[in-house]
Amino acid sequence: MNFLIVGLGNFGSSLAIRLTQLGHEVIGVDSSMSKVEMFKNDITHTICANCTDIHSAKDLPIQDTDVVVISIGENEGDSIMATAIMKQLNAKRIIGRAVSKTQEIILNAMGIDEVVHPEQDSSFKLAKNLTTEGLIDTFELSDRYSIVKVTVPERYVGKTLQELDLRNTYNLTVLTTLTKTQKRTFFGLRKGTFEVNEIAKANTVLEEDAVMVLFGDVKDIERFLE
Amino acid sequence: MNFLIVGLGNFGSSLAIRLTQLGHEVIGVDSSMSKVEMFKNDITHTICANCTDIHSAKDLPIQDTDVVVISIGENEGDSIMATAIMKQLNAKRIIGRAVSKTQEIILNAMGIDEVVHPEQDSSFKLAKNLTTEGLIDTFELSDRYSIVKVTVPERYVGKTLQELDLRNTYNLTVLTTLTKTQKRTFFGLRKGTFEVNEIAKANTVLEEDAVMVLFGDVKDIERFLE
Repeated sequence: MNFLIVGLGNFGSSLAIRLTQLGHEVIGVDSSMSKVEMFKNDITHTICANCTDIHSAKDLPIQDTDVVVISIGENEGDSIMATAIMKQLNAKRIIGRAVSKTQEIILNAMGIDEVVHPEQDSSFKLAKNLTTEGLIDTFELSDRYSIVKVTVPERYVGKTLQELDLRNTYNLTVLTTLTKTQKRTFFGLRKGTFEVNEIAKANTVLEEDAVMVLFGDVKDIERFLE
Repeated sequence: MNFLIVGLGNFGSSLAIRLTQLGHEVIGVDSSMSKVEMFKNDITHTICANCTDIHSAKDLPIQDTDVVVISIGENEGDSIMATAIMKQLNAKRIIGRAVSKTQEIILNAMGIDEVVHPEQDSSFKLAKNLTTEGLIDTFELSDRYSIVKVTVPERYVGKTLQELDLRNTYNLTVLTTLTKTQKRTFFGLRKGTFEVNEIAKANTVLEEDAVMVLFGDVKDIERFLE
């Protein structure tokens, strides 16, 4: 596929490099020549252009691009301008990036249905994980349902899933478990890490320091973690 | 809980505001007075200080803080310096933010076990979703297992989960389904959105334009999406 990534900040450059690594044709655009120079070896093509100026943007190969991602994060006005210009230049599919509610309202009003919020998503997730005891990671499906990684409560260590019967007691489904292992870092230090086991079965035993992946109603998960 | 958030960029400010909304005591610190002014009504306290300077940082109430999050993203060196200073000042729990592999290696070498990568996580996820047909969202448990939101393939519309029997044919578990609905945006435009249904049952019917949440081996998910 062909991608045009506008704005090579932390998010945009990381996205452009990743898409290049996955074997796609990526054009990374930034108005700063130093950014363009910095990433020229890691992104298929890098171009120095100011996409808030239609005369500058119309020289980009927008018609040959499958997806345009506007990843300008620093200046909300610039991000909205660049998005509007890409729409005006008939980009096939535009993904906008919003750092505020106001910006999202404007993007929606322009008919941009695909809006990403990298900072908000990450920060909401981190806020939730930091403030709930035992919670390591969350994947929210809606206000009501979540998939969570939680440390195995002490009272459950050594028991099998069949013995616990979380389906009947808490209305929760255990998808899989993770076992703690140690790996050596670059400097030879030991660091704790987790390895995912097979899909959970009735005879899966919950080990000490292990993590379990649960799916269910948020209220039931909270009840379980209390 | 008491939090100290160092760096009020897009990620740091979003995190500090969210934690404040969740009812926690948050001190947001930035070296720019304009950032401190901008967020003073949304974060419990905001302080203007340069945390890469130990004389400036030691006046912060670090001993009364449960978690220090270093959310400086623009300058990697500043982020590492601020993290080292927080360690030197005996912060109880430090969460670092890495925007590059080198930065993560240094943070690990300093004994910072908790490192977040907001831009990398979001960009890797978006890269994956953009390049896999039908894939809407992913929650990677490991290289091997994932939980994914995928649009229901046309050949499955109108069938029940029992008829499809994905457990036996693809070794995949259907957790739940999402139904497409329309909602009005701020400007009164119609926008497509999804509503999560109950936990999937044998008699759940797959509707047109619906989304299903699948759990299983990445290889099996790819085979299913082919």
